[in-house]
Amino acid sequence: MNDAPSRSLASPAGSAERLAALRAELDRRGLDGFLVPRADEHQGEYVSPRAERLLWLTGFTGSAGLAVVLRDSAAIFVDGRYTLQAEQEVDTALYTPRHLTEEPVGSWISERLKGGKLGYDPWLHTADQVTRLGATLKRSGATLVTAEPNPLDAVWLDQPEPPLAPVVPHDLIFAGESSADKRSKLAGELRCQGVGAAVLTMPDSIAWLLNVRGGDVPRTPLPLSFAIVDDEGQVDWFVDARKITDEVPAHLGNGVRVRPPEDLAPALKEQSGRKVRVDPSSAAQWIFTQLEAAGAEVQRGDDPCLMPKARKNPTEMSGARAAHRRDGVALTTFLAWLTEAAPEGGVTELAASDRLYQLRAPGERFRDLSFDTISGSGPQSAVIHYRVTPKTDRELKPGELYLVDSGAQYLDGTTDVTRTIAVGEPSAEMRHRYTLVLKGHIAIATARFPDGTTGSQLDSLARRPLWNEGLDFDHGTGHGVGSYLSVHEGPQRISKVPNRVALKPGMIVSNEPGYYKPGAYGIRIENLVAVQEAESRSSDERKMLAFETLTLAPFDRSLIDVALLDESEISWVDHYHKRVKRELAPLVEAEAKAWLETATTPLEKG
Amino acid sequence: MNDAPSRSLASPAGSAERLAALRAELDRRGLDGFLVPRADEHQGEYVSPRAERLLWLTGFTGSAGLAVVLRDSAAIFVDGRYTLQAEQEVDTALYTPRHLTEEPVGSWISERLKGGKLGYDPWLHTADQVTRLGATLKRSGATLVTAEPNPLDAVWLDQPEPPLAPVVPHDLIFAGESSADKRSKLAGELRCQGVGAAVLTMPDSIAWLLNVRGGDVPRTPLPLSFAIVDDEGQVDWFVDARKITDEVPAHLGNGVRVRPPEDLAPALKEQSGRKVRVDPSSAAQWIFTQLEAAGAEVQRGDDPCLMPKARKNPTEMSGARAAHRRDGVALTTFLAWLTEAAPEGGVTELAASDRLYQLRAPGERFRDLSFDTISGSGPQSAVIHYRVTPKTDRELKPGELYLVDSGAQYLDGTTDVTRTIAVGEPSAEMRHRYTLVLKGHIAIATARFPDGTTGSQLDSLARRPLWNEGLDFDHGTGHGVGSYLSVHEGPQRISKVPNRVALKPGMIVSNEPGYYKPGAYGIRIENLVAVQEAESRSSDERKMLAFETLTLAPFDRSLIDVALLDESEISWVDHYHKRVKRELAPLVEAEAKAWLETATTPLEKG
Repeated sequence: MNDAPSRSLASPAGSAERLAALRAELDRRGLDGFLVPRADEHQGEYVSPRAERLLWLTGFTGSAGLAVVLRDSAAIFVDGRYTLQAEQEVDTALYTPRHLTEEPVGSWISERLKGGKLGYDPWLHTADQVTRLGATLKRSGATLVTAEPNPLDAVWLDQPEPPLAPVVPHDLIFAGESSADKRSKLAGELRCQGVGAAVLTMPDSIAWLLNVRGGDVPRTPLPLSFAIVDDEGQVDWFVDARKITDEVPAHLGNGVRVRPPEDLAPALKEQSGRKVRVDPSSAAQWIFTQLEAAGAEVQRGDDPCLMPKARKNPTEMSGARAAHRRDGVALTTFLAWLTEAAPEGGVTELAASDRLYQLRAPGERFRDLSFDTISGSGPQSAVIHYRVTPKTDRELKPGELYLVDSGAQYLDGTTDVTRTIAVGEPSAEMRHRYTLVLKGHIAIATARFPDGTTGSQLDSLARRPLWNEGLDFDHGTGHGVGSYLSVHEGPQRISKVPNRVALKPGMIVSNEPGYYKPGAYGIRIENLVAVQEAESRSSDERKMLAFETLTLAPFDRSLIDVALLDESEISWVDHYHKRVKRELAPLVEAEAKAWLETATTPLEKG
Repeated sequence: MNDAPSRSLASPAGSAERLAALRAELDRRGLDGFLVPRADEHQGEYVSPRAERLLWLTGFTGSAGLAVVLRDSAAIFVDGRYTLQAEQEVDTALYTPRHLTEEPVGSWISERLKGGKLGYDPWLHTADQVTRLGATLKRSGATLVTAEPNPLDAVWLDQPEPPLAPVVPHDLIFAGESSADKRSKLAGELRCQGVGAAVLTMPDSIAWLLNVRGGDVPRTPLPLSFAIVDDEGQVDWFVDARKITDEVPAHLGNGVRVRPPEDLAPALKEQSGRKVRVDPSSAAQWIFTQLEAAGAEVQRGDDPCLMPKARKNPTEMSGARAAHRRDGVALTTFLAWLTEAAPEGGVTELAASDRLYQLRAPGERFRDLSFDTISGSGPQSAVIHYRVTPKTDRELKPGELYLVDSGAQYLDGTTDVTRTIAVGEPSAEMRHRYTLVLKGHIAIATARFPDGTTGSQLDSLARRPLWNEGLDFDHGTGHGVGSYLSVHEGPQRISKVPNRVALKPGMIVSNEPGYYKPGAYGIRIENLVAVQEAESRSSDERKMLAFETLTLAPFDRSLIDVALLDESEISWVDHYHKRVKRELAPLVEAEAKAWLETATTPLEKG
C-alpha cells in the first residue's frame, strides 16, 4: 500500500519512501542502523505531534514501541497490547513486527549488526536504556553511537514545530503548597544529601514544583520544559518564553529564572565540579553526556520531586474528593441513561463515549479528559486498551457487556474510573466472573497493611479470587495518579512486577482488577483509592495503612452473584453504595436520582 | 576481658591480641584495612572450623556478619537477628557493633578510609559483593585491593586444617536420576546457550550433579569442592583425594575426573578463549579474576544446577514424603510426651530438644539434624533464631507457649517443621494470635496460582490475617529446601523481598508464618510444602499450580479459636488432621497413638 497520494502526519501511506529517505540519510552519516522510539525528550507517556517520529515513519499509532532500521532489514518492537495493532497499521513488508518483551531488542540487533554502527538520538533514550543496550551490543561487536541532530528529522520535511501551549499558574487553592515552600524543602533535601543541584527532565515534576500547568501534550496539562534546581532552591527554568502567560512571572517570584531552552546546554556546562542529581530511569542520555563532559559529578538517583509529588497534601486530597464527586455525578447520570437506553437499541460505543463527555465537560473546574475514553461493547470490551473509532464502532446489544474506562482532568484533581455494565440480561458466567473481579477489588479496597508495604506485595490480594478459579488478568492492578497532572504517575504501583517503593499516606493509586474472555467479553472494576493511616484497632502493634476509596459510582448489581460474597464483602458493597447515594443523590437530576436509588439498594443474599 | 589464658577457637578472650596481631600483619603488607566476613570459599550457610575467622577474631558466633579492621578503628556489622548477640559476645571496646542493613558497610568505611587501601581475601567475597563495595569506596577515594594469602590466616597459628569428611555415593534409589543423565542434560543446556563450560562453586550444586554426599560442614551432608563442567558433560572435580571413599570412582564413571584442589587455578587458566558461565552471586571474586586473566569470556549468570536441583524429581518427591512420615512419627511421639509431661513440671528446653533428638535418631535413613533445634519456652519462644544453651536453659511452665523448630537429614529427604504448643492453659490473646498465624498458614497451603507466579507474590497471603489486626512477623514466609542437602536452598522463596524466580512443580518450600511478642511469647507454624500442578477445575483457563503439604504432625487444638476460622479453613484443618492420623497412627506406639487420636479430632465450632 505504498501508492497513497497523501503525506499527512498519521498516514502509513508513503512509508516505503520515508524509510528509503531515512536510510539514505543514515548512509550519508555513515550509520548502519538507527533507533526510532516512540518517545520525546522527556520520556513521557503523551508526546507532542513533533515527537511522533515512529508514527510518521511506520504508521504505528500505539503509545509505546520502537523501530529499528538497519541497511537491509527493519523491525518494529511493540508489547503484548499492540502486537495485533502493529500488524494492521504497519507495512510488514518493510518492518518485521517483533514482541518487545519476548525478544529483547538488543538480541535482534546483535544477530544482524555484527561490527556495525547503530545510531541513536541521545535526547530520546534514557541513560538506563543506553547502558543496557550498549552492554548487549558490545558482545556482538556492534557499536552504539549518538546521531545528533536526529537523522529522521532531516528527512521529515513537514515535521511540526514544538508545541507552544500557554503556561498558566496552578492556584494555591488547588496546589495546597506554594512553589517557594516546595523549593525550599527540596533544597533542604539536596543539601542533606550533599548534592549541589538536580536536573529535572520530567515535565510533571517541574509543573508540580513550580505550581504551573500547560497544554503541550494531549490529555495532560503539562508544559514541556527542563529545569535545574540548586541546593538553595533557585530554579533555572528552560522553557520557551512565548508560552509564559502574563500572570506567571509574579506567580513564580524571584526564585525562578526563565531561560530559553537553548540555554540548557551551557547551563549544564556550568555544573562543572558540582555534584548533580539526575534520574537515569527518566533523563535522556544527552543530559548525562553533557554533565560528564563538563566535569560535573553525576549522582544517579531518583528525581527528587517524585516522592513529594506522589504524596498528595491535604488540599490536594480534598480537591481529589471534590473532583471525584463531580465526576461521579457525570458518570452516574451517564449510567442511568445507558441502563435505560442501551437495551432498547441504537446506542453505539462512540455515541456512549460522546454522551459521557457531554455530561462531564460542563462540570465545574473540568479542563479535559485525562485519557481517550475506552468504550467497548461485546467482544470489544475484552480488548484491554481498546480505542473506539468510527470504523470499529458498534451498537451495544442485549446479552452483552459494556466496559467504559474514562477519566477527566479537573483543576482540583484527576479522575480515572471503570465500570462494566450488563446490557439486558447477563449470563451466569458473566456474573460469576464479575463477582470474582469484584472480590479482588474489595480485597484491595479493604486491605490493611503495615507501613513499608509495597504495591507489589498487595497485588495478589486482587488476583486470589480469580486464581482460585484458574483465571487471571494480564495487566497491573493499579497505577499512581497525579493531581491535575498525569493519570499515570510513579513511583508507586500495584503490580506483580517487583517494585520497591512503599505505599505512603497521600499516594493515589487505581484499584482495577479485571477479567477478559477474548472474542466474548471483558470486565474491569476500577476506583481510585488514596493511601491513608488505617483506623486504629486495639490489637495494632505497628503503624498500619489502608485505602480510602475516592471514586463514586454504583457497580452494576445485576452482575453481582451475592452467593459468592462473604458477609464482609456484602457489607463493603452496601456501605459503598450507601455512601455513593448519600454523596451524589443531592447533586444529580431527578431521573438519574431515581435510578441511583435503585442502583444502590443493599444486596440481597438469595 | 583480654586477660583470658586460653587460645581456644571459640573464645573471645585474647581478642585484643588477635586484633593487634592482625593489624601488625596488615601493616607489613601495606594495607590500611581488611575485611573479615563470616564466609568460606563457597559462600555457604555453614562453614568448617577452618573458615571461622570472624569467630576467632571477634568471638561472634552468629551465622552472618562482617568485621572491618582499620588502623585505628574496627567495627562488626551484623543484621537485626544478631545485634544483641554481637554486643554480648564481642569486646565493644575493640569493635563498634553496627547494623548491616541500616548502615551500609561501604559508607562506614568511606567515612574513615579516604584514599587508603582496603584489603580483602578474593576467596571470601562474591564477585557481586566486590563490585558493589568497590563502587561505593571509589567515591571516597579508597581502593579495594586483594590480600592473598589471607593475612588473618598468617596470624591464626592454630587454624584448623580443611575438613576431610568422607565422600560417599548418593544412591540412585534416593537421587532418582543418574549423575551421567544430569550431566548430559546440563551439557545440552550449556551448548544451547553457547557456553563452553560452567564453573561450579556451590558444594550443594556439585553434590547434586555428581550424586555424592559428604560431611565437611555441620548439619548439611556436603563435601566442600569445586568443579568445572564442560558442554559435553565432562566434569573436572577439584576435591581432596583423601576424602574419596572406595565406592566413589566406580559410582562416578568416566565422565568425572578427580583432581587435587590446587589444580583449580591451572584449570581456570586452560579456559582461555572459552565462554565460561560463573554465578556472580555465589562464586568468589577469585574465580572471576583468574578467568579474566586467562582470557576466558566470562558469562555472568545463574549456577546452571540451581533450577534442576530445586525441582525435585518423582523419586526425590516420594523420598520426601517417606522422610516426612518418619519425621512425623518422631515429632508426634515427642508432642504426645510433651503435652503430658510439661504441665507437670521439670521439662526444660534442653531436655525437650534432647528428647526429640533421641526420638528422631533411630529413624530409618536418619543421618543428622538439618539444623540446631530451636527449643524456646515463654519469652524465649519469641526469639526468632533462639539457640538453647545450658546457660539459657529454662523449664517449660504452665500458661506459657513452647516453640520447637527442628528438622532432620534423612537419606531420602530433608525435613524442617515448627510446632507451637500451649503448656497448660493458653491465654485468649495467645489463641487469637495463634489462630491468625494459622489462617496465614492455611492461605499458603491452599493457594492456587498461575504458572509463572513467584513466592514474593504469594507472601502477603500469609500475612493478611495478621495485617488485619495490625500485626506482622519479621522474617520470610518460606525458604527452599534441598533433598538430603541444604535445609535452606535457593533460588525460590516466599518473601516480601522481591524475587523473580517463579515457583515450579517439584520445588519444596517452607510455609512458616509466625507472630512474636517480645519478652512474652512467640508463635510459628511451619510445614514443608511442594509445588505441584493444581487439581483441575472446570473454569481453569491457565495452567494452575498449588502446594502439597509434606509435613505430618498435629497442630495444638487448644490454641485454635475456631470462631475466627471460616468454613473452608476449618475443613482444611480437619482434613489435614485426618490425614496425619491416617498416615501416622499405624506407625506410632500405643501411648502416642491414643494422644494422636485426641489431637486430631475435628474442630468444634462454638
